This record gives sequence, C-alpha cells and structure tokens, in this order.
Amino acid sequence: MALIVQKYGGTSVGNPERIKNVARRVAGYRAKGDQVVVVVSAMSGVTDNLIKLANEIMPLPTEREMDMLLATGEQTTIALTAMALHALGLPAVSLTGAQAGIVTDGVHTKAKIQNITPKQVHTLLDEGKVVIVAGFQGQTQEGHITTLGRGGSDLTAIALAAALKADLCQIYTDVDGVYTADPRIVPNAKKLEEISYDEMLELASLGAKVMQSRSVEFAKKFGVVFEVRSSLNENPGTIVKEETKNMEDVVIRGVALDKNQAKVTLVAVPDKPGVAAHIFKAIGEAAINVDMIVQNISHGSGTPATDLSFTIDKPDLLKARKVIDGLKMSVGFREAIADEKIGKLSIVGVGMRSHSGVAAKMFETLAKEGVNIDMISTSEIKISVVIDLAKGEQATRALHTAFIG
Amino acid sequence: MALIVQKYGGTSVGNPERIKNVARRVAGYRAKGDQVVVVVSAMSGVTDNLIKLANEIMPLPTEREMDMLLATGEQTTIALTAMALHALGLPAVSLTGAQAGIVTDGVHTKAKIQNITPKQVHTLLDEGKVVIVAGFQGQTQEGHITTLGRGGSDLTAIALAAALKADLCQIYTDVDGVYTADPRIVPNAKKLEEISYDEMLELASLGAKVMQSRSVEFAKKFGVVFEVRSSLNENPGTIVKEETKNMEDVVIRGVALDKNQAKVTLVAVPDKPGVAAHIFKAIGEAAINVDMIVQNISHGSGTPATDLSFTIDKPDLLKARKVIDGLKMSVGFREAIADEKIGKLSIVGVGMRSHSGVAAKMFETLAKEGVNIDMISTSEIKISVVIDLAKGEQATRALHTAFIG
Repeated sequence: MALIVQKYGGTSVGNPERIKNVARRVAGYRAKGDQVVVVVSAMSGVTDNLIKLANEIMPLPTEREMDMLLATGEQTTIALTAMALHALGLPAVSLTGAQAGIVTDGVHTKAKIQNITPKQVHTLLDEGKVVIVAGFQGQTQEGHITTLGRGGSDLTAIALAAALKADLCQIYTDVDGVYTADPRIVPNAKKLEEISYDEMLELASLGAKVMQSRSVEFAKKFGVVFEVRSSLNENPGTIVKEETKNMEDVVIRGVALDKNQAKVTLVAVPDKPGVAAHIFKAIGEAAINVDMIVQNISHGSGTPATDLSFTIDKPDLLKARKVIDGLKMSVGFREAIADEKIGKLSIVGVGMRSHSGVAAKMFETLAKEGVNIDMISTSEIKISVVIDLAKGEQATRALHTAFIG
Repeated sequence: MALIVQKYGGTSVGNPERIKNVARRVAGYRAKGDQVVVVVSAMSGVTDNLIKLANEIMPLPTEREMDMLLATGEQTTIALTAMALHALGLPAVSLTGAQAGIVTDGVHTKAKIQNITPKQVHTLLDEGKVVIVAGFQGQTQEGHITTLGRGGSDLTAIALAAALKADLCQIYTDVDGVYTADPRIVPNAKKLEEISYDEMLELASLGAKVMQSRSVEFAKKFGVVFEVRSSLNENPGTIVKEETKNMEDVVIRGVALDKNQAKVTLVAVPDKPGVAAHIFKAIGEAAINVDMIVQNISHGSGTPATDLSFTIDKPDLLKARKVIDGLKMSVGFREAIADEKIGKLSIVGVGMRSHSGVAAKMFETLAKEGVNIDMISTSEIKISVVIDLAKGEQATRALHTAFIG
C-alpha cells in the first residue's frame, strides 16, 4: 500500500466527462490498495472567465479580492471531483487549500507556502477516504485566502507530498513525460525514464515547458520524487528525483531549443567598474528577466570599451528598448542592437560533469552544420548557445543525433 | 453614525453593472457616516448552473460536496462587490461565511446557524472598512463548509445584525416593501410603513412571498428590526419589528390570496381515535406539507364517520394521491376527492385580537359577493378561508375595500 499524491491540471478536469475520467483513474489506484490524495486545478477556462468578470468591475482589481475570486475555481473542481468519486462508490472528501492546512505568506496572487499542517488530510486518509485538495490556494496565518501564482497547483501537490511523506507524487498533464527533445522538432526524441531535479530545472528554464521551475525547486529542496505523466493514457511518465550515480552514464539528458528569446547588444560600452551593475539594475527594476549575459573583450583604441550582449524574453523587448534608450546618456554606449531572430539551443546533463570534451563536441557538431554561434553560456550541467533562429531546428536535430542518437 | 447591515439578493447583484449599483448605494450610506456590512447572494443564475454541473457528474450529489460547490457562488459575488467598492475609492474587504465567524450545525444544504463570532467583522469595521459577507453559508465547528438552504442570505443578514447589534438591517429585493395586498390584484393596495413580526410571518406563509418565514422567525427571536425595500429605487420600504401598541389601531394589515394550494377531502372517514394521526403521519413521512385541516361533524347513520379536508401545495398533489390510495384499505374511508381550483384567502392583523366581529365582517363581505366558503381556519391574528379559485381575485378586492380601503 502506497500513499500517492496526484495532481490534475485544468485540461484534465476541463469538463464533467474528464472529471469522471480522473475519478476512474483514482479508482484504479484505490483498487490496488493505495491511499490517494488528489490535487486539482480550476477547470480550463474558468480562471480566465473570472478575471474577465473582475475586469468588468475595475481594470486593476485588488489582489486580495482577486485571490478570493480565483479561489472559487479550484473549489468548484474539488467538489465535482469528489462527486465523481462518489458516483463510483468511493468515499471521497474535498478540502479547500485552507482546510488542507496550507499556510502561506500574505503576498496575494503569488503567495509562498510557509508550512503545511496536514492533520485533516491524515485523519481523512486514515478513515479510508480519497482526499481531494484544491490546488493553487492556501490561507495566511490570519485566515485570508491566497493563491500561489503560476504553476501553483503543481506546487500544492509537491508540497503536500512532502508534508505527507508520500511514496509518490504524480503530476498529470497533457504530455507523456519529459523528452530528450521536442518531438515536433526531433521525431526520434525519446521519453526519459528518469531525470534529476537539476536537469529538469535546466530544461524547464530552457523552454521545455513541462513544469514551472519553482515546483521543481521545491521538490528538490524537500527531496520529493515525482512523476510527470499523461492523463490521457496509461503510459508511465518520467520520474524526477535526486541525481544517482548511474545517471552520469548518460552524458546528455536532453536538447532544448528556446525560440522565445531576443538578444540585445550594447555596442562600445565604456569599460569601467559599475557600468554593468548600473545597466542591469535599471533593467531589473523594469521587471525584465535577463537570461544570458556575455561581455566580449574590449576592442578598438581610445577609451577602453566593450560590447555587452544579453538575452531577454521576446515580449519584453519593447519595454527593454525604452529602459536602454533612457540609459544611453548616463552610460554612454554607442548604440543598442536588438535581434529577435535568435534561438537559444542548450544541451543538459549531469553526466557532462565527468565527461570532458562535451563543449568541443557540441561546437564541432554545429560547425559541421554551418551554424554560427553568437553567444555561449555554460553551467556545470548545461551548455547554451545563441544561434540564428532559422537554423534552430536543424541544429537541434544535429545535436540530438550527436549526443543521444 | 449608525451600523447598518444590508442584504442584496441574486437579482440585485445579477451582473457587473448591478454590482456597481450596489456599490454606489453603499457609498451613499458611507458618505452619511454610517458603518456598513453588506451581505450578498450568488449572482442570479450562478447557483442553477452549478447544480446543473453537479448533475452532469451524478444525479444525487452528496450534500457536503453540494455545499462546497454552491458556496463558490457567494464567494464570487463578495469579491466582485469589494472590487466595485474599491473602484469608488472605498476601503472594503470580503469575507466568506466561515471568515465572518458564522458557525452552523452539520446538516449540509440546510444548516442552522448555531452562533456568530463577529470578531473579524468588528475589527474590520473599526478599521473603517466596508465588510462584504457571503450570504447563505457558514462552517461547522469542525471546519466543514455548509449552506443554509432557501432564504439563507436573508438569514445571514439578520443573524449578523443580531450578533453585531446593528442599528438597522435592510433586506434589498425587487419589490418596494410589504403591501396590504398584491398590487396586481388590488390596484389600490398600499405599501405598509411597518408591520409586526407575527403579521409578517402570517403573510409570508400566506403567499405574500417577500421573505422566508425562517428569517422572520429569527429576527423575532432576537428582536432584529429590519426593513424590506427595493434595490431599484430610493423609496423607503417596510419596517418589520416587534408589535407596538398603536399597531392595534389598524385592525387588518393585509389581505393575501394563495392560489398555489389544493384541497383534498376524505369522505366518510371512520370516526375513531387515532385515525387522523395515522393519516397525517403517512402524509408527513412523504414530506408533504399540510396547511389547513378541517374535520366536519360526523353525519349519516351506522358507523360514526366524518369528512376530513386538508390543503397542501398544488405540486404535491400527485404524491399525496399515492399516499392516500395506500391508506384507503387501512383507514377505510369511502373516497378521496381532490380540488385544485381553490384559493386560500386570508386577512392578517394584530388588531383583530382587540376587535370583535372581524370574522363576521369577513364572511358577510364574501357573502355579499356571492362567494361560497369551503373551509375556515383561524389563528389569533389571521382568518383564512378556502374559496373557489375563480372568485379569488374578486374576493380579495372586496375584503381589501371592506377592511383597508
């Protein structure tokens, strides 16, 4: 008998028929003797409708009241899911985030979980019930309803799994698991049986949008082993867990292409202390997320100057241009060049730590394909390059063939 | 400065525009320096949609989960109402029933309020905020979400007014107040300035469907003075309060016609002890509500027998027939006659206690109109008669003219 926490996203509970499917799946685990805690999101479309309603009242609704409003989405799903289990003759009880003991800080619309007191969940499980918990929500110590922001339901599931010391946490989604590359680009991409938290984090932040980084980070911190799998079939998914020795036998776990970045180059930036800090402070204050930063060696004569390149999310480009225009006088660079036609191509794998020559092999492979490298950035388990967007898919396939097969 | 509890029903908060109207009205009271607690229902249609959704999952959903589901309706409205007040620049905070300290018993879908701990409401009022409370819902001592059943939001408002020792409780609805008769039947019916709890109770149960009896009973028990008024205009409504001396100056407060009753007569029921108990026990077990009961004197020769007539809600007639058919053998009456074409006509007024001859005047008036009386039932402040439905409206007008003008 295992204790399993399962999380189903908005599409998996998008209508009564799908909610019944979820119930049937839960019933299958129960039939095997497992204890099941189910975390559900709002039915797809519901949250958007609530936001629309709020905007008809006022353009920028207060965040506390947005949380009060949005929390009804998951509350609706938990009740319907419990009913669907009752219809199958299974004992089930729904709990709001507050009732499940999920305590957060008071930062409405993006609250952080502070602690979980799963006493009520334990009691209900001990009574033989399936416990359905509203994802994405909690309450403050003072009793205000909060929501956890993007990826919040995944976080609820993983945090509950940690608090309950669950044997397994399953994140049900509309993909079969984590792949070695995007199957739409690399037809022979393979589903991974397992992956380490760090690899998953690198892949998540690299455009393999299976889960938000924050949930993976939480799982890593508390050692929660979880499985990403599909709610549409019975295929086993990908297990995400702490790195093990034999994971290093595989040098590269995956190849990821992020088409959603833009590159900005500031030409001839005065090469003196404090300049980079000045620039990135201004960009950060505009809430623009900077990913890669590369500073080339100073060149030319006269005042020492350098070219500074960085990548940002494409939708932030306009906002970034305004910030940069404002900096031109104070920083004194020559010009700013933006390039939207880039792709960030990365290889990820804990195995590269113990295997030398990975970077060389990557660059060689790209050279053979005639792909020029604009920027390079590396971490212990990742190498990313910025290349011409037009060659992105071809380059992804080439790297996949070279490293994975 | 007064502390006012206002309740707005589903129609009054039926869409964003109407919610903004509610906010404007609240703002008006605040401008006068009043403290305001607002109780709202689910937006009209929302509860029905949720019930439909539940029925797509299973035909008879569990009551605990129905409460979990339906409670989202009011939670949505409180958030939107708070936002609408924010849009007008007023500080406002929404509270679910649970957050407002409304504790109920555990009878899901028709829970009774056990007590209210309005600490949180007081704190927020002291901070200068408008407090928006979800009507119709509460939570048990153990933390389960409950709903109060029909008329639940009125009850929330009146119970909160009692707990907060509010100066006034206003029930906003789509009528201007309580009238001396239905204005569609009696064109010169007058709106009452005030009415006693008992009169209101008799009128409520007599088909003047302004409020559920249970809220009026609660108000009576705790001495909560409340006003029934329209959310569509600024007209003062009807004040419902404890009987005062000068109320007796008015003999008859109102005339009510209930067209929704049916009469059943059991002919030649054996006149022996326990027979009536046997009959009404069976009918009660079928959850059929019996209103008037009249037993005529035994007649005929042989075994003593009597005719037993009673009235029930018209929609229950089919169910009642089945019960009665089942009783025929055991009770041994001759036949059962049902009559759907009846009207129950009543006059109500605390003044009739101290004025003799009211019944005589009523019967005389009806006689003059050629209206035959089928059944008569009286209480201290009410006389009801069952008459031919076809003459119901004419008789209502005649009684109104005779007693009220």
